[in-house]
Amino acid sequence: MAVAQLLKLLVSRSLFHARRRYSKLQLSPALSERLRVFESLREQSDKNRRREVRESPLSVRLTNGQTVKATAGVTTPHYVAQSLRRKPMFYFRVKGALVCKVNGELWELGRPLEADCELQLLGFDSAEGRQAAWRTGACVLGSVLEGVFGAEVCREGASELGLFCDHVPSSSSLSLSDVEAKCKEAAALKLPLIGLDMNTAELHELFQDSKLRMQLVEEQINGPTVTVYRHPVTFLSSVAICLFAHYFLSSQLSSITVSNQSDSSGLTRLLGVAFPGEKDRQEWEREQEEARRRDHRRIGTDQELFFFNDVSPGSCFFLPKGAHIYNTLTDFIKSEYRRRGFTEVVTPTLYSTALWERSGHWEHYSENMFTVTSEGAQTFALKPMNCPAHCLMFEHRVRSWRELPLRWADFGALHRNELSGALGGLTRVRRFCQDDAHIFCTPEQLEQEIVACLDFVRSVYQQLEKSLQQFAERWELNPGDGAFYGPKIDIQIKDAIGRQHQCATIQLDFQLPIRFNLQYVGRDGKLHRPVMIHRAVLGSLERMIAILAENFGGKWPLWLSPSQIMVIPVGGNSESYARQVVATFHEAGFMVDFNNDPGATLNKKIRSAQLAQHNYIFVVGDKERESGAVNVRSRGGKQLGSRQTEEVLRSLIHLRDTRSNQDEF
Amino acid sequence: MAVAQLLKLLVSRSLFHARRRYSKLQLSPALSERLRVFESLREQSDKNRRREVRESPLSVRLTNGQTVKATAGVTTPHYVAQSLRRKPMFYFRVKGALVCKVNGELWELGRPLEADCELQLLGFDSAEGRQAAWRTGACVLGSVLEGVFGAEVCREGASELGLFCDHVPSSSSLSLSDVEAKCKEAAALKLPLIGLDMNTAELHELFQDSKLRMQLVEEQINGPTVTVYRHPVTFLSSVAICLFAHYFLSSQLSSITVSNQSDSSGLTRLLGVAFPGEKDRQEWEREQEEARRRDHRRIGTDQELFFFNDVSPGSCFFLPKGAHIYNTLTDFIKSEYRRRGFTEVVTPTLYSTALWERSGHWEHYSENMFTVTSEGAQTFALKPMNCPAHCLMFEHRVRSWRELPLRWADFGALHRNELSGALGGLTRVRRFCQDDAHIFCTPEQLEQEIVACLDFVRSVYQQLEKSLQQFAERWELNPGDGAFYGPKIDIQIKDAIGRQHQCATIQLDFQLPIRFNLQYVGRDGKLHRPVMIHRAVLGSLERMIAILAENFGGKWPLWLSPSQIMVIPVGGNSESYARQVVATFHEAGFMVDFNNDPGATLNKKIRSAQLAQHNYIFVVGDKERESGAVNVRSRGGKQLGSRQTEEVLRSLIHLRDTRSNQDEF
Repeated sequence: MAVAQLLKLLVSRSLFHARRRYSKLQLSPALSERLRVFESLREQSDKNRRREVRESPLSVRLTNGQTVKATAGVTTPHYVAQSLRRKPMFYFRVKGALVCKVNGELWELGRPLEADCELQLLGFDSAEGRQAAWRTGACVLGSVLEGVFGAEVCREGASELGLFCDHVPSSSSLSLSDVEAKCKEAAALKLPLIGLDMNTAELHELFQDSKLRMQLVEEQINGPTVTVYRHPVTFLSSVAICLFAHYFLSSQLSSITVSNQSDSSGLTRLLGVAFPGEKDRQEWEREQEEARRRDHRRIGTDQELFFFNDVSPGSCFFLPKGAHIYNTLTDFIKSEYRRRGFTEVVTPTLYSTALWERSGHWEHYSENMFTVTSEGAQTFALKPMNCPAHCLMFEHRVRSWRELPLRWADFGALHRNELSGALGGLTRVRRFCQDDAHIFCTPEQLEQEIVACLDFVRSVYQQLEKSLQQFAERWELNPGDGAFYGPKIDIQIKDAIGRQHQCATIQLDFQLPIRFNLQYVGRDGKLHRPVMIHRAVLGSLERMIAILAENFGGKWPLWLSPSQIMVIPVGGNSESYARQVVATFHEAGFMVDFNNDPGATLNKKIRSAQLAQHNYIFVVGDKERESGAVNVRSRGGKQLGSRQTEEVLRSLIHLRDTRSNQDEF
Repeated sequence: MAVAQLLKLLVSRSLFHARRRYSKLQLSPALSERLRVFESLREQSDKNRRREVRESPLSVRLTNGQTVKATAGVTTPHYVAQSLRRKPMFYFRVKGALVCKVNGELWELGRPLEADCELQLLGFDSAEGRQAAWRTGACVLGSVLEGVFGAEVCREGASELGLFCDHVPSSSSLSLSDVEAKCKEAAALKLPLIGLDMNTAELHELFQDSKLRMQLVEEQINGPTVTVYRHPVTFLSSVAICLFAHYFLSSQLSSITVSNQSDSSGLTRLLGVAFPGEKDRQEWEREQEEARRRDHRRIGTDQELFFFNDVSPGSCFFLPKGAHIYNTLTDFIKSEYRRRGFTEVVTPTLYSTALWERSGHWEHYSENMFTVTSEGAQTFALKPMNCPAHCLMFEHRVRSWRELPLRWADFGALHRNELSGALGGLTRVRRFCQDDAHIFCTPEQLEQEIVACLDFVRSVYQQLEKSLQQFAERWELNPGDGAFYGPKIDIQIKDAIGRQHQCATIQLDFQLPIRFNLQYVGRDGKLHRPVMIHRAVLGSLERMIAILAENFGGKWPLWLSPSQIMVIPVGGNSESYARQVVATFHEAGFMVDFNNDPGATLNKKIRSAQLAQHNYIFVVGDKERESGAVNVRSRGGKQLGSRQTEEVLRSLIHLRDTRSNQDEF
């Protein structure tokens, strides 16, 4: 209690100085009214909260397993974070918490804890923390645009790339550097935003002056209330609103950069990034540079993996080396299918609209489907997903409970008509293949099937992880918010430079079996409705190749590598022996190249093989020929020396088949 | 010489009797004139031939390696065939020769040999012999329609299914049974047709009375002359004409059946079949019955391999067992690709019409392409073939002679907009995949690449042949008429019931490299034009599966079989051991099923496994469990007895991996 009071005092003192400094600024009548409504609602809310508060002791379990004591209705996660920072013997690292998870649910730091709980503090190095910072930055930007520059703001928000603020500028022309400067001033105050939950009626009252704001609010409300934030300094009290907000940024936002401006649907959008501190900014800039270096489009071009051509926007041309990666991933999943009781099917590409009407896709998804007209009358659409085809297979004949679960996998090409402006590299495409499968099972089998799906996902990503040991960077498996028996489980993975990707999905479906009237004869001889599970492990192969390319920065682990071995003969006598070596490794299934260019020196050949990311370079001279050996160098430049060819073959087969990324053997 | 004279005498005597019998029939003035022209041209031709004849000895080498003596300009293949039939000690079987090959070139039997040669006599059991019989039958039918029924015939011919004759009937209505009876009378005469080579001027003279006939002749002439045939009996002297004719039917045609009548483009078409003898007719009817039994659509349904659905006409749904065959064939070809220096690529499905205009497909093939419109403006078409995409890959960057030959394989789905009426089973589809590849090479590499392609084709079909040993039926490799350096080589294969299929193609292409302006930097540093080879070995996978299904009659060889093993436990104690057996074989990559249905007897389970064409049935009881064995039965019902599981596993892996169809081990 005492400490919480002290904290309040500190915040008030800060506020006092800030208000004094900016008191000369005048608010517009509309904003003044908005501020008045906000404060009156807030006062009411505070009163209610005080009545509800029942101060009782509780215990907070931290992610490292340690426990701290706290008071229900009083202690905030923010307070816990601050107190931990002051105890150096607390080995648990709290890196500038920006947001937290209470029992796995995202909370703002300022909301008092209510009962015994598990608390996870999240800093700027987490996706949630970064989103919190950027959403906060967007709120500050919105406040500045409304309070200082008289713009009408209608939406603030953040994407993976940064923050944005859509607005109608006031008549005076807006200077980006002025906006940036004012945002920096506001951020430098390091004052927390004040949040308030409001229902629709309250929102209408608050935003009576702004139709645009109200319209967007209404479009996006999907709960009984929404949280509205204001900056505590008067002149910034435009009450920037951030929907979907689950954060509380305390004393941390040190800078906002407004970096771009673009036009979208009549409104002006300001784009930016925001950071809690200079170190975070530097780290982010390093990441951006790293991301540019790792850009899969650059790697795709450099390594001749794939390319795009305007004759087929959003459809990738995989060159032999890219197709090798594509097929290796597919074969990997196929081997798992065999172990896990999935069987492959092959289904058509075009289906009459009658099917899409039956599945419901025509009503909800037809805009994204490519359609084809045949013989004047019938209209067909290129499939954007495989599920309706698999439903047809299920209903093709009477099914018995003895057959279930049926697990059908389909690598068929899918087409979705993304706008050409939205296309980019392998991550936004119109044509892609998924490691897609559908499971038809009885309701009783549902649990074990979902457990098996999760095990499948874990197993695949754990095997991918093995490829990453060398880089000491980890993939994180993070089953998302979906409840276990809820409709969808999203699995997030984190790549080598910290970006999160959602690739695997497990989605229950009770609707399609109804739409297709799917039935099976149960043990009781009666007809029953099966449950359907949609699932993908790698997701889109195209997208996964992009993620892996960027994650590895083009340094593919041996098993995935399209350039596994380069054989370089030294001296004319060794060439035919070198060709034998090539043949031996080629027969064993390796991707082997050969460089006997008479125009290049040995060193140049080694260097260019390293640049082309060949995992191993075999130099073969007279000595090696005489002893049946090869002189091995790893991609990293490590000299593994002269080894018997047979031994090298055995070792590389082992490294490949175990999907290891160990270099040495 | 003496024998040849004797033969002429015999034919003349036959003619004499026939003419006496039918002399009362009157020809129309037009036909009389046509006959006069024919005979005068023939007389001229005979004179010329007599002048050219230089009677010198020659030797004829038969396909069994034996040699017979003959006289150039006098001895005909027909004479050789007749003389061989009269020598029973000649173990070389001549089964009613209908046509022959002289040095591999198709000849009629009546054309005198000219020099030392190899002679292959072909009977009704060969595709060429059957075609000869049916074309002859078509000529006889044409003669009867014109000479007896006063119709105007414009085209006779034959397809794989039988003979046909397009005509304009005379005013009198035509009774099919009358036509058939007259054809049988004519056939019963067993007289050879009289053939005469004519040039365009002579044809115009001959057919001055028939515009229709002349029109079709002109459309189909693609050499300096064409052979015209007449029946030797006067009343049949309507001079039936058969283009592409390379046959001579001597004393053999015993019956013609006119079995159907249909309308096509204003003309009436009579369809029929013709046979040299009653035995041939019976054999053909057995074949027809066998073909119905082997119909791949029936097998596809019975074995749950695939099905079709109206929501996607002409596109196949491959169920798990069908997809297994599909993938096994693909994997087989992929393993050959690896050995033969082909690399796989993956290319888009949709391409802008700009590409198809560039490749020339838009001009010549757009009717068969499915088109899609995106974002209002751009039109895309689903690819009907892969070649333009591969040309784009070639031109993607500067190519060097060092890279050539480039051999790119593509299993991408192709779509061709066949009319819905023409669709049927897996042989006429709208969506299919080919084991398609394109080779880009220098002109100097062309020969070795074509030789390698032929070797590839031979190797694949020879490996498929191994699967057929059990059936004692052979696939015949028959490189078609295309010259070695000509634009196209078609390879015909013959299935178990004698039907020929054209699956593999090797096609040179000098045009697309020009259209795409493909170039490579030669050894001389200058730009050169590559040559392109289109090639497919299996051709359409869909069609190949149909052919194989019918060829095997659903009894798939082990390596291709979607139902390799059925495990049946006997007695409750053996079930868990039986499951172990299932797991062992499943892990080794086999398709294993398990039948522990308590409602069926052991005999019933064995019977149903045999009906489902499981290659092997393992019965597992206490005795087997105790000794780690399985009791093996083959699909044919052979009891291979109790064997150690490990030994059986080793044997089956060997049989599978060598693509053997041996049952026992």
